[in-house]
Amino acid sequence: MSPIKETADNVKSPWYGARFRVRYQESDQMGVVYHANYVNWFEIGRTEMIRSLGLTYRSMEEEGVLLPVIGLDLKYKRPAKYDDYVTVWTRINQMSSVRLSYEYEVRRDDSLSDVEHSPSSVGPVLPSAVLPGELLVTGTTQHAWVNRDFRPVRLDKSFPNLYDALSKALR
Amino acid sequence: MSPIKETADNVKSPWYGARFRVRYQESDQMGVVYHANYVNWFEIGRTEMIRSLGLTYRSMEEEGVLLPVIGLDLKYKRPAKYDDYVTVWTRINQMSSVRLSYEYEVRRDDSLSDVEHSPSSVGPVLPSAVLPGELLVTGTTQHAWVNRDFRPVRLDKSFPNLYDALSKALR
Amino acid sequence: MSPIKETADNVKSPWYGARFRVRYQESDQMGVVYHANYVNWFEIGRTEMIRSLGLTYRSMEEEGVLLPVIGLDLKYKRPAKYDDYVTVWTRINQMSSVRLSYEYEVRRDDSLSDVEHSPSSVGPVLPSAVLPGELLVTGTTQHAWVNRDFRPVRLDKSFPNLYDALSKALR
Amino acid sequence: MSPIKETADNVKSPWYGARFRVRYQESDQMGVVYHANYVNWFEIGRTEMIRSLGLTYRSMEEEGVLLPVIGLDLKYKRPAKYDDYVTVWTRINQMSSVRLSYEYEVRRDDSLSDVEHSPSSVGPVLPSAVLPGELLVTGTTQHAWVNRDFRPVRLDKSFPNLYDALSKALR
Repeated sequence: MSPIKETADNVKSPWYGARFRVRYQESDQMGVVYHANYVNWFEIGRTEMIRSLGLTYRSMEEEGVLLPVIGLDLKYKRPAKYDDYVTVWTRINQMSSVRLSYEYEVRRDDSLSDVEHSPSSVGPVLPSAVLPGELLVTGTTQHAWVNRDFRPVRLDKSFPNLYDALSKALR
Repeated sequence: MSPIKETADNVKSPWYGARFRVRYQESDQMGVVYHANYVNWFEIGRTEMIRSLGLTYRSMEEEGVLLPVIGLDLKYKRPAKYDDYVTVWTRINQMSSVRLSYEYEVRRDDSLSDVEHSPSSVGPVLPSAVLPGELLVTGTTQHAWVNRDFRPVRLDKSFPNLYDALSKALR
Repeated sequence: MSPIKETADNVKSPWYGARFRVRYQESDQMGVVYHANYVNWFEIGRTEMIRSLGLTYRSMEEEGVLLPVIGLDLKYKRPAKYDDYVTVWTRINQMSSVRLSYEYEVRRDDSLSDVEHSPSSVGPVLPSAVLPGELLVTGTTQHAWVNRDFRPVRLDKSFPNLYDALSKALR
Repeated sequence: MSPIKETADNVKSPWYGARFRVRYQESDQMGVVYHANYVNWFEIGRTEMIRSLGLTYRSMEEEGVLLPVIGLDLKYKRPAKYDDYVTVWTRINQMSSVRLSYEYEVRRDDSLSDVEHSPSSVGPVLPSAVLPGELLVTGTTQHAWVNRDFRPVRLDKSFPNLYDALSKALR
């Protein structure tokens, strides 16, 4: 049905990084980041990746194309803490005209100076590159393209600009 | 402009209680509830108060009447902790056909057994009554009635059922 | 290393239900519950399941035994909405003296009256039972028993009361 | 009791700005930022202001000095929306050796290009300056200096470095 096959596992986009500080509200009484917050952070990662491609998720929604999460998984290696400087690295894992899957790595940027004024987004970084910083959490999210009534849509027809931009990122 | 004067300070509704347990996610690394969560809890308090009056805030929204917060203030006496059983006590403070103000007390219910199956809402309790439990936080919120375009509406005309129910609660 | 084998997939505890209303804060601009909140709800589910067994997660933490999440996955079937009455059904999936895994189903309780005063927890329900309500989200979480320094501990030695209670629930 | 008088209302520190994008999770079903999130944002504002002064709130906590909120108030003028670029402007309002009060303005930065890589913090800006952007929310928070047991401490004795840095900011 889709003219574009799902990408092979070795066909992935570059990594894009979104960098920010851990908020106090995100800590819990174990003294570490509450585990559900990484799910929010993944959303920041894919939002900034799409922005790096020259589009915005906000404009997609305003045109009536939504991209709800239909599945996700996470593995927790080490906890982030309040005021850590972390980067959510995001890349496209799989893509067709009806589905999209992202892969994430949350890493702590130890070497950055506290007073340094850093950009909020970094990258792209080639898929084969070694990402900087200490690995904290990995995960993936799966998404379906739908319209405002949550009916499936084909991205190549309903939002070709984004479809092309994402396709190019995979090459 | 409004046929109903704002109520005098001594004309207040009964107190209505909404009871629930503190969630782990609501704790922070001080080991207490993060202070912004009480603002969420106030919303639970007024939602359950309106339900006790036989209406729902959800149905109001579905009919196009919104009640956004235009101001709020809180005073913190003692911190709530994870797994505490707390009650948000809510009453109407002031009301006209264009504005509404609520008053809140968050209290810890120490005497309740851990295994007791308790109702999620309690009350009403007369304004003059002494509320049970340990006082943690007090506060007020101020609201304006608006339509979906955030234009002010008169509640007595746009949602008379709710207006009447709230007015009766004040007597 | 562990004298207790992981349970077979068909050896699971009964289901325990924790019931509550969706908060306004949990909605997002799609008009449905933001997807990260289900991760919080899973925590409510396992907290109330442990309470049903006569223990509390809070007292575990006070004795120095923590149970951080080391992995999780979710599948989203249908969205919950503001003010829905939902039940998080929770059961133990796998257990050894060093690890624990839970399984969850979030279901919407359509038939409940709005004004009904309902208990906050329900169950247990046998593993073979058909759970009531509309299925919204399924998922699992994996946990490791650790002490306050995040070092692994053996539950049967460090918190035998809980270990016994959980083991009995599996029979 | 305190050798330092509270500052007069016209003796305030410069404004410091902390800039970030609104997260999807912060939107609600009205299509705007849920009102409790501004309370979190105020915390980001004062955290970054202290960092601009060469110290960190994190290191304060590690030395055993906490600064819990004992009161707050907010006025809502206009709603922020998902993906808006906002700046939380923060300044010290009043200060003694036992208490501290901050004042905030949340403003939307309309003129910024979507693809611009901006610093996460800006300022200081003199108290008399006109702040840029559209005013959304104003507020204040009141704090008490306490130790890990929530007992009051005198900042000039328990954390003189911070006390001096804050005092200098007021001049």
